[in-house]
Amino acid sequence: MSVILQTHAGDETAVRRISTELDSFFARKLHLAKAHGAHFVTLWQVASERMRGGKLIRPLMFLQMLDALSPEADHVDFSRRPELVRLAASLELLHFSFLLHDDVIDGDVLRRGRPNFIGAILADHAKTDSNHLADAVHFARSCAILMGDLLLSEVHQAFARADIGAHARTKVLDLLECAITETVAGELIDVGLSDGMVSPELSTILEMCRLKTATYSFELPLRLAAVLSGTSPSVESALAKAGRHLGLAYQLHDDVLSTFGDAAQHGKDAFSDLREGKETAVIAYARMTSTWGSIEPYFGSPSLNEARGIELRRVLLECGSHSYVSSLIDDELCAFEKLLDHDSTGLPDRATAALRSLATEIATRTS
Amino acid sequence: MSVILQTHAGDETAVRRISTELDSFFARKLHLAKAHGAHFVTLWQVASERMRGGKLIRPLMFLQMLDALSPEADHVDFSRRPELVRLAASLELLHFSFLLHDDVIDGDVLRRGRPNFIGAILADHAKTDSNHLADAVHFARSCAILMGDLLLSEVHQAFARADIGAHARTKVLDLLECAITETVAGELIDVGLSDGMVSPELSTILEMCRLKTATYSFELPLRLAAVLSGTSPSVESALAKAGRHLGLAYQLHDDVLSTFGDAAQHGKDAFSDLREGKETAVIAYARMTSTWGSIEPYFGSPSLNEARGIELRRVLLECGSHSYVSSLIDDELCAFEKLLDHDSTGLPDRATAALRSLATEIATRTS
Repeated sequence: MSVILQTHAGDETAVRRISTELDSFFARKLHLAKAHGAHFVTLWQVASERMRGGKLIRPLMFLQMLDALSPEADHVDFSRRPELVRLAASLELLHFSFLLHDDVIDGDVLRRGRPNFIGAILADHAKTDSNHLADAVHFARSCAILMGDLLLSEVHQAFARADIGAHARTKVLDLLECAITETVAGELIDVGLSDGMVSPELSTILEMCRLKTATYSFELPLRLAAVLSGTSPSVESALAKAGRHLGLAYQLHDDVLSTFGDAAQHGKDAFSDLREGKETAVIAYARMTSTWGSIEPYFGSPSLNEARGIELRRVLLECGSHSYVSSLIDDELCAFEKLLDHDSTGLPDRATAALRSLATEIATRTS
Repeated sequence: MSVILQTHAGDETAVRRISTELDSFFARKLHLAKAHGAHFVTLWQVASERMRGGKLIRPLMFLQMLDALSPEADHVDFSRRPELVRLAASLELLHFSFLLHDDVIDGDVLRRGRPNFIGAILADHAKTDSNHLADAVHFARSCAILMGDLLLSEVHQAFARADIGAHARTKVLDLLECAITETVAGELIDVGLSDGMVSPELSTILEMCRLKTATYSFELPLRLAAVLSGTSPSVESALAKAGRHLGLAYQLHDDVLSTFGDAAQHGKDAFSDLREGKETAVIAYARMTSTWGSIEPYFGSPSLNEARGIELRRVLLECGSHSYVSSLIDDELCAFEKLLDHDSTGLPDRATAALRSLATEIATRTS
């Protein structure tokens, strides 16, 4: 059984296939970009560089589930189904286009410790002219808006042109529409929270996590696989539910890791979530405790130093935030297990095994 | 012969059809938005309000050309071709999604003297809380990024689902991809000009106008009509060329109007282009004259007052910018006429008449 979040030997072919597809996509785009001048070429070049080295979680989940849903002992020969690899790669483009607009909205220039797309464009211009930083930042952010638009368009083009028959195409277009709507709705709650337009209730945070992460990162790849392997509606529905549970567990685990995890392992700035005042389930729980008063003055303070960060982490741990959010993750994983135990889902054994393997990785990952 | 830019009696049915299609689109979206909370509903509500009252130039051009390309004396019965009206309406969504991201990039809160989407969202929050203006601006701009993404997605959904046969669908998807690529490339030049990354050569400005305006506003609707009426490749090619000439003439005329036109008629701030330092063909020409030295100190100055604005306009007129850009417009319209006179285009008479009517309006419009 291959695993998804950590790529093991069994997935290597799939990773290679998706990477090759992405490489040829960017090579084609770079070639065409030359007609529109140096800046347009740079746009594509930087995008292609920034996309490399991703874990390809979503495309791998999709291909692996497609394989798991194929008739027993019969593996999908992806070398003969390039349209499926193209759809897989487009899930990574969708993810990247969301990240681009997300980084514009959040004003971020780093992602996991290295310059993101905006940071890379900025570095390119900062070298040549350090007198016009504000212009360079504006240019770099505008580039990210525009590149996000191009990639979002490309995802739709891939779905619209997929050679999968009219019926399946309509269904995958429905799934894409639903995923984009929910992701935007989730992102809107996120922006509303950070701008003080939305009150940081725990239920709101959970809804945001579901909308912003679970739908496009888990439910979409799994349901796409269901549609494209022609399974029953009950299998699709079970995968949709499984995706929601796993997606929510994944995002909550991510928030726990960012706050309490080992920065050396997960690669993010140890206290960036606290410094940015990011409204997570960890914080929403702490708000409801009597210790919030000792956290609030430092929460969202750009000048939060390491000593204070360590102290805040200790207070969050002691007030029960860590164990509360961990229990929420357990709830999701329990509900997920209960779902799989139900005979009526009609999920084949290989699909159940793939999902369980995914759940294990979510529960145990440290980066 | 109905006309396009100014809606006359003959177009009224088409206008009604497109408006009805847009109304039902937004009604559907508003209904679905309720599942995701009040802010998401507001997003759709404000978008639907801001889109109303547009001139529907692009959808009308498309429907009119479709009709003109249908066999002699045989008009298209659009009441029996809802898929064509849907595509027409989606051209307006595409236009609006570009405007949304354009306004984010330009930091605009007004369009033609009234609050744009960002301004309307901002007004909504400024009422409730005037202490957090920066947050409200950030929220409103983020809303515009997100709404632009939703509408861009919807355009692709409309193209992908159009019930027009597989062959035509592939062709219209090609046209859409090309139009979006060129519009983004043009927008990138525009941002590069305003941030000082691109040198304001006249040839660059003209290329920007072609990419940013002519392609999606003229070439796309006309070529779409060619594809969907099943005409010959030579007709499609003639319409593409005609679209480029008309689109460039349109944009140049727009720049002339903004600088020299009657603000009371065209509805924009009389000196906003000068105040914002917008790089247009008018300015690019002036830069090459000896009078530029007397314009430069005030060009792009946010505090430019009316008296100075009138003076700058006079200098621009005297240095020959107005007549130079007018001659560029004439060149485009002449090349356009020459194209139509060519027998080999294969354009039917009604199509030629429709194009000529469009050209006349471009040449004579004052708003």
